[in-house]
Amino acid sequence: MSTAAPHSTGQDRLWSVDEHLEDVLTAIRPLEPIELHLLDAQGCVLVEDVTVPVSLPPFDNSSMDGYAVRVADIAGASEEFPAALEVVGDVAAGQAGRLHVGPGQAARIMTGAPLPPGAEAVVPVEWTDGGLGEGPVDGMRARSLAPEGATGHVRVHRPAEARAHVRAQGSDVRAGDRALEAGTVLGPPQIALLAAIGRGTVRVRPRPRVVVLSTGSELVQPGEELADGQIYDSNSFALTAAARDAGAIAYRVGAVADDADTLRSTVDDQLVRADLMVTTGGVSVGAYDVVKEALAHAGDEDEPGSGVEFRKLAMQPGKPQGFGTIGPDHIPLLALPGNPVSSYVSFELFVRPAIRTLMGLTDVHRPTTRATLGADRALTSPRGRRQFLRGSYADGTVRPVGGAGSHLVAALAHADALIVVPEDAESVEPGDEVEVVLLG
Amino acid sequence: MSTAAPHSTGQDRLWSVDEHLEDVLTAIRPLEPIELHLLDAQGCVLVEDVTVPVSLPPFDNSSMDGYAVRVADIAGASEEFPAALEVVGDVAAGQAGRLHVGPGQAARIMTGAPLPPGAEAVVPVEWTDGGLGEGPVDGMRARSLAPEGATGHVRVHRPAEARAHVRAQGSDVRAGDRALEAGTVLGPPQIALLAAIGRGTVRVRPRPRVVVLSTGSELVQPGEELADGQIYDSNSFALTAAARDAGAIAYRVGAVADDADTLRSTVDDQLVRADLMVTTGGVSVGAYDVVKEALAHAGDEDEPGSGVEFRKLAMQPGKPQGFGTIGPDHIPLLALPGNPVSSYVSFELFVRPAIRTLMGLTDVHRPTTRATLGADRALTSPRGRRQFLRGSYADGTVRPVGGAGSHLVAALAHADALIVVPEDAESVEPGDEVEVVLLG
Repeated sequence: MSTAAPHSTGQDRLWSVDEHLEDVLTAIRPLEPIELHLLDAQGCVLVEDVTVPVSLPPFDNSSMDGYAVRVADIAGASEEFPAALEVVGDVAAGQAGRLHVGPGQAARIMTGAPLPPGAEAVVPVEWTDGGLGEGPVDGMRARSLAPEGATGHVRVHRPAEARAHVRAQGSDVRAGDRALEAGTVLGPPQIALLAAIGRGTVRVRPRPRVVVLSTGSELVQPGEELADGQIYDSNSFALTAAARDAGAIAYRVGAVADDADTLRSTVDDQLVRADLMVTTGGVSVGAYDVVKEALAHAGDEDEPGSGVEFRKLAMQPGKPQGFGTIGPDHIPLLALPGNPVSSYVSFELFVRPAIRTLMGLTDVHRPTTRATLGADRALTSPRGRRQFLRGSYADGTVRPVGGAGSHLVAALAHADALIVVPEDAESVEPGDEVEVVLLG
Repeated sequence: MSTAAPHSTGQDRLWSVDEHLEDVLTAIRPLEPIELHLLDAQGCVLVEDVTVPVSLPPFDNSSMDGYAVRVADIAGASEEFPAALEVVGDVAAGQAGRLHVGPGQAARIMTGAPLPPGAEAVVPVEWTDGGLGEGPVDGMRARSLAPEGATGHVRVHRPAEARAHVRAQGSDVRAGDRALEAGTVLGPPQIALLAAIGRGTVRVRPRPRVVVLSTGSELVQPGEELADGQIYDSNSFALTAAARDAGAIAYRVGAVADDADTLRSTVDDQLVRADLMVTTGGVSVGAYDVVKEALAHAGDEDEPGSGVEFRKLAMQPGKPQGFGTIGPDHIPLLALPGNPVSSYVSFELFVRPAIRTLMGLTDVHRPTTRATLGADRALTSPRGRRQFLRGSYADGTVRPVGGAGSHLVAALAHADALIVVPEDAESVEPGDEVEVVLLG
């Protein structure tokens, strides 16, 4: 047994942020689509072109509460010389055409109700006496309180053209039209349209199930007492929240102690509910870095390319990272560093795009912008590393929040952006233009 | 019994959009705060100033995997003339200080482990021979595989200053500092900070429970067969999705038939799980407008100002609206028109701000911007009404999607903005500047 430090291809060199990201996104495929009920599909990506099966509206119907009439009967009508029509009954929404409107007749009609045969237009109730024999009214009496409104006579005070206040069948969408294209993200208006055309279920890529597992014997759950040398587990909470925020269904697995067997069996247990696994901690060069120890050789030996590879990235924070697949189903696993800010930045750069790729989204990255650095002094950065500093962005200017120390979780909570200092820069001066990742 | 159409104060005049909105938001109070587990509080508004109970980090600790040493012992060390130190053991993260580092000694230390008494600095393992007696190494062997690494001797190849690679106690936050202020919305980074300082629960305003109830005897659930005169219920789906999108826990109650008793008993049943009720349909001037019939007199007679008032708004779409409170707990209720586009626009303008007010957010409205109208011809609008047209916004230009008909749910699904045509405008020309509500 060699006593030298372990080596593997990926460990021998420094990976750039872009190389690592490309490696992750190349390996991850969108989840297989499933048929979901409409409200379960909210936020998901449609994988079918949806065609309109029935024209909308499905029948000519009234856009007003009023009277369905024949145009000739009300030609020239005015308040002084109203047209008196016989009311043959009510047409309410949801009632099929039992009435016929003949010459000299009108049907009282409600918004959305089908235009009855014989009728050519609708006059709003406000253009009539509402059947009361007095002046214009501003509404109808409830049918349940005044059933006599559906009979008798009505006086119409204004003429109307054919099709007035009638919504024509198919005037919104026609049967056979494309309602939504594959790739559409289903928000409330898209769900409205799908429901309106009668789709109770749709074929979408489901939300990925992401298991977030923090590791570290020093970690105590919030709310409990800290003993000497212990700190609180924040990563499992932060990344579970961040995974949900990215669109995933996230499961938090609280801190696993630094023991390779325990970790491996916990990971194996969780695989059944994971489309993606994220671990924090245990990925660096220490003697107790059990994620590395437990997972570095966890691939399927019959499957080339499986297993988790640990590597060093040319970035700060977040230098040590692991990525690969695990278990018989080759579930992708990202092993992030344990420091809270390192893990959070790593999540934003690598895990969030991975989750959104699983969802089938094409726009997987946080938006970036260029901004002027507003700072009291220059920001320094180690050459050859892409540095991500916490910042606060507003109106084209970004200001650093807190220092460069990767443990500044307090600063992170007051930041809304990451300031990017590229690999070839060792300092950025106040007033310089910098790239900014907007954390939204 | 009078046979005249019903009248009330609010019905006699046309309300402006702003008057109605103000009336709604003045009546709605943020929900009472409750103590929630951290991950249940995601997206909620904090109502307490959170103070740091324990400094972070809680103890001086190592920022690297390496060796904890005394500075004098490694002064002048180089690869050619290394300092040889006796390794007295390991300090792993989570271990309290059992070791003491004396002159000529070093403790192997892991990232995050407490700096042991006697030690003044940490040298990274890469600056040493890792105890192997050869050249520099790039990592440690796992403790479980090579326990001898915690004993023997290590050669250090570089000097270090006092406190090098040591994260000082309290360098992130200090006990007594303000961690987060009341009013903060809890996203992933804020949850990270709260967990890090040991808070397992926090006091926040809960997500409002919103019951969405569609009405209409013509409505059929998507997936079922349409009979003559029927259409699919889309409002209950669209507004449930929109309520969730606004931050609420939303419950959908499928179409209730146009019968006042049925509606009233359904509403009464649902009150127990509602912080806010939203109905669609049945609010206009028709004889079957049962929401109006059932709820117009549903106030508590002992409580002035309770009950639902129905009114006409100077807007298009969305003219008929109801607002008030209902039941013994005076649950706010917004009664929206039944047309899908009218109800959706009404939701965006009135219900979404109401939900966000219940959450305790200060920023309750959709963002608006000014944009140039890109269109082939002028948009027309009735004088005295504020019109909201569906639009598609990009790079300072907004283009209408579909027409002005309030039934164009297909157009809504392809819009991402509302174009606002103000009350005093009857037309807007291509190239004119218009106000735009961004639906995000």
